Amino acid sequence: MDAVIISCGTELTTGQCVDTNSAWLSSQLTPVGVHVVEHVTVGDEVAQLVPVIRRAFEAANLVIITGGLGPTLDDITREAIAAALGVPLVENAGALTQIRALFERWQRSMPESNRRQAMIPRGCEVIPNPRGTAPGIRLIQGDRSLYAFPGIPAEMQVMFHATVLPELHAAAGGATIASARLLCFGISEAKLGEILSDFMQRGRNPSIGTTASQAILSVRALAEGASPEEARELLQADINEIRRRLGTVVFGEGDDTLEAVVARLLIEKHKTIATAESCTGGLLAKRLTDISGSSAYFLRGYVTYADAAKVELLGVPANLISRHGAVSEPAAEAMAIGCRLAAGSDYTLSITGIAGPSGGSPPEKPVGLVYIGLAHSAGVETLRVLCGDHLTRDEIRDRSCKTAFNLLRLRLLGVERSKAG
Amino acid sequence: MDAVIISCGTELTTGQCVDTNSAWLSSQLTPVGVHVVEHVTVGDEVAQLVPVIRRAFEAANLVIITGGLGPTLDDITREAIAAALGVPLVENAGALTQIRALFERWQRSMPESNRRQAMIPRGCEVIPNPRGTAPGIRLIQGDRSLYAFPGIPAEMQVMFHATVLPELHAAAGGATIASARLLCFGISEAKLGEILSDFMQRGRNPSIGTTASQAILSVRALAEGASPEEARELLQADINEIRRRLGTVVFGEGDDTLEAVVARLLIEKHKTIATAESCTGGLLAKRLTDISGSSAYFLRGYVTYADAAKVELLGVPANLISRHGAVSEPAAEAMAIGCRLAAGSDYTLSITGIAGPSGGSPPEKPVGLVYIGLAHSAGVETLRVLCGDHLTRDEIRDRSCKTAFNLLRLRLLGVERSKAG
Repeated sequence: MDAVIISCGTELTTGQCVDTNSAWLSSQLTPVGVHVVEHVTVGDEVAQLVPVIRRAFEAANLVIITGGLGPTLDDITREAIAAALGVPLVENAGALTQIRALFERWQRSMPESNRRQAMIPRGCEVIPNPRGTAPGIRLIQGDRSLYAFPGIPAEMQVMFHATVLPELHAAAGGATIASARLLCFGISEAKLGEILSDFMQRGRNPSIGTTASQAILSVRALAEGASPEEARELLQADINEIRRRLGTVVFGEGDDTLEAVVARLLIEKHKTIATAESCTGGLLAKRLTDISGSSAYFLRGYVTYADAAKVELLGVPANLISRHGAVSEPAAEAMAIGCRLAAGSDYTLSITGIAGPSGGSPPEKPVGLVYIGLAHSAGVETLRVLCGDHLTRDEIRDRSCKTAFNLLRLRLLGVERSKAG
Repeated sequence: MDAVIISCGTELTTGQCVDTNSAWLSSQLTPVGVHVVEHVTVGDEVAQLVPVIRRAFEAANLVIITGGLGPTLDDITREAIAAALGVPLVENAGALTQIRALFERWQRSMPESNRRQAMIPRGCEVIPNPRGTAPGIRLIQGDRSLYAFPGIPAEMQVMFHATVLPELHAAAGGATIASARLLCFGISEAKLGEILSDFMQRGRNPSIGTTASQAILSVRALAEGASPEEARELLQADINEIRRRLGTVVFGEGDDTLEAVVARLLIEKHKTIATAESCTGGLLAKRLTDISGSSAYFLRGYVTYADAAKVELLGVPANLISRHGAVSEPAAEAMAIGCRLAAGSDYTLSITGIAGPSGGSPPEKPVGLVYIGLAHSAGVETLRVLCGDHLTRDEIRDRSCKTAFNLLRLRLLGVERSKAG
C-alpha cells in the first residue's frame, strides 16, 4: 500500500517550524508494510492545497493530512478537502456537540469561531479528538482513504492510533511483518556493529539495523514471514541471540527509557530513592517522576545549585568544596551520602558537573566533566564522565542523567563494578 | 519569486530522520522575498524523484534539492536530475579534481565509489563543496534555476550561502519580505483570532496568522515591500498595533520561552529565586537552569514529592496537609512561604497538583488540578489551575510550569492581579 503525507501550515513553508509529524507518521506506517512515497508540505492557501490533495488521492491508497483544522481563518484544510472532492462543507451536529462538550468540561463558554471546526466536507466522517477542539476528518472511497488530523502532535498521534492503525491492521489480514527494537546504553555504534556484523548483511531476513540517538543505541529487527506466527518466531530467535551477545548493555525494548526501567526495578524490589543535583538542575528528579505512581519509590529531590545549598541541605563540608571544588569526586560522594542521610531513602543519586557552555576551566575541569554518586546501604560509588565539549548544555545534562540511571540500574541488577569510574 | 524545496532520502520517508533542511532553507529564503510554495520529500528512487523535479521546475522559478549526492548506489539525485532534463551524466574533470584534493588533504586514498560524485548532468555547473566530497549542481535556464546540495546540513548550508543567497540578492533588486513572531500565553487561539480578525483577512499585506503549540500562541507576521525598509516598516506598524491590543499577553518574540523571559527579568532586577515542587517533580527547577549562567538568579530547588518532605523541608504544618490535602491552596501557599524562608530568595514558586493519569478524585480534586504559589517580600499569592484531564501527564506538568513562570513574569512586570486565581 502506498501513502502520501501532506502537512499544511505557513509556519512550515516559511521555516518557522520544522515538520515532525510527517516523520512520525512514516515511522508508524513503515513497520506495518505501508510504503510512504512522498511527504508534501504547503502553506495555508486553498489554491496550493487543493491540487496537492487531488494528486495524492490519485497516486496513493492512503492520504494523511495534518494541520489546518484550527478555529481561525488561516485554517483551510476543511475548505481544501471539500474543494478537492467537489462537495460543500456542512455543519456536523455530532462534531459540534463534541466541541461544545469539551468547553463545558473546561467550564468555559465556546467562542463563536470554534463553530468553524464542526464544518465537515459532505460525505466525510468525523474523527473524535479526545484532546482538543479540532475534530478529524475521514473519507473512505473503495480501497482509498483520506484522513485529516490536527497539526498538534499529541492530538494527531492519539487520533492516528485510534483510526488509521487499527484499520490498516484489519485490512492487512495476515500481516507478515514482525518488528522489535532493543535499546542499549554504554556501547558505541561501531562496537555494536562489530558484535552484530553477521546479522547486518543486506538482504538477510530478519533484517537488523542499528541507530544512535542521544546516547541510546537501538537495534531494530524486522522479520518477514508467510504468516504472523512465522514472522514472530523468526524475529524472536534473532532477538534472543542478540540479547545473549549484548548482555546487560541491553536495558529495554520498544519505547522504554532508562528511568522507566529503573522505576520498575525499584518498585519490584520495594526500594526508595532520593536525588541531589547540581548541574542537571532538577532533570534527574523530573525524569524519575515522569511516571504516574512515582510516589511509590521517589521520596524527594534537592536541587543544590548554589554551594551554600550543598552545605546547608546535604551537609557537604564547606572545606571539602573549597579544597576539591563543587565539581569533584569527593563532592559527588558527599552529596550522595548527605542526601541519603537526610531523605532516609534506600538509594540516592547525586550529580555535579559543568554543563556549559560557560564555566569550564580546561584541562582539569572542562565543560562536559560530570561526577555521579550513588549511595546505598553498602556504601557509596562514584563515576567520572567526560561528555565532551562538542555536546550542548541540554545534551550534557541528558547524558549525565542517563549515566546516573544506568549506574543505578546495574546496581539494582546486582552487576558488580569496581569503585573507580 | 516562487520556490519548491525537494529533499531526497529513504531515511526521511520511513521516518528514521526528520527533515530539517527544508525548514532551514525556507527560513533563509522567506526573508529575502522568496515565496516557498511547497516542500516535497521522496525516497531514494529515481522513478519517484524524476516527476517531482519536472513538476517543480515547471511550477517555480527556484528549485532546491537536498540529499542523494553521496557516493553509494542509493544516492540517485544526479541520475534523477539528468533524467528529468533529458540529458546524459558526464564525468566533470573539475569536480573529480576537487574530490581527489579532499582525499589528499585527509591523507587517504580515494575509494573508487567516490568517482560517482563527479558525474554531473550535461549542461549543469558544479558547485564546490568546501566541507565534503559531494559537489553541488546548478542549472540556470532563463529566469529559472535549480540547485542540488548534499543532505548533510553543515555542507548544504555553507554551499547555499555561497551561491543561492548572493544570486537572489542580485536578482531581487529590492523586493523583500520581513517577518516576525510574537509569543503569547494565557489566551485561547479563538480569542486571539477574534482580537486580530481584521488583520487576518486573506490577501492582506502584512499577512498575519496564528498557531498554538503546548499552550503557547504564536502570531506570525509577514510583510512584503518594494524595499527591505518598506517591508520592515509595514511589519513594525502591525507588530506595534498587535502588541498594543494584546498587552502583557505577549511575553516574547522569535524563539523566546517563558523561563528565558523570567530569567532575563530576574537578572535585570538582581533578584533570586528558589522552587518548591510536588507534581512537577523538578521540571520547574530544570527549566530555570536550562540557561547557562542561571546561578546568577537560581539558588535552590526542593522536590518535595512525599508529604513528609513537605513538612520536613518546607515547614508545611502536618495538620494543614491532613485538613486540606497536599493538593490545596493552603498547601501551595505554605510551600512557597516555607521555601522562601529556607532559601532566603527574593521569590519562590511552589507547585502542587495532580498530574495523573491516576490519583485524581473528582469532582473536588480531578486530574489536572494544580495550585501554584508565589511568595515575595510583599506576601504570597496563589493560582488555581484546572488543566483538564484530556491532557497527558507531561502536558499537565508543562502547563503547570508555564503558568507559574507567567505568574512570576506578571509580578516582575508589576502587573496587578487579585489574590483569587
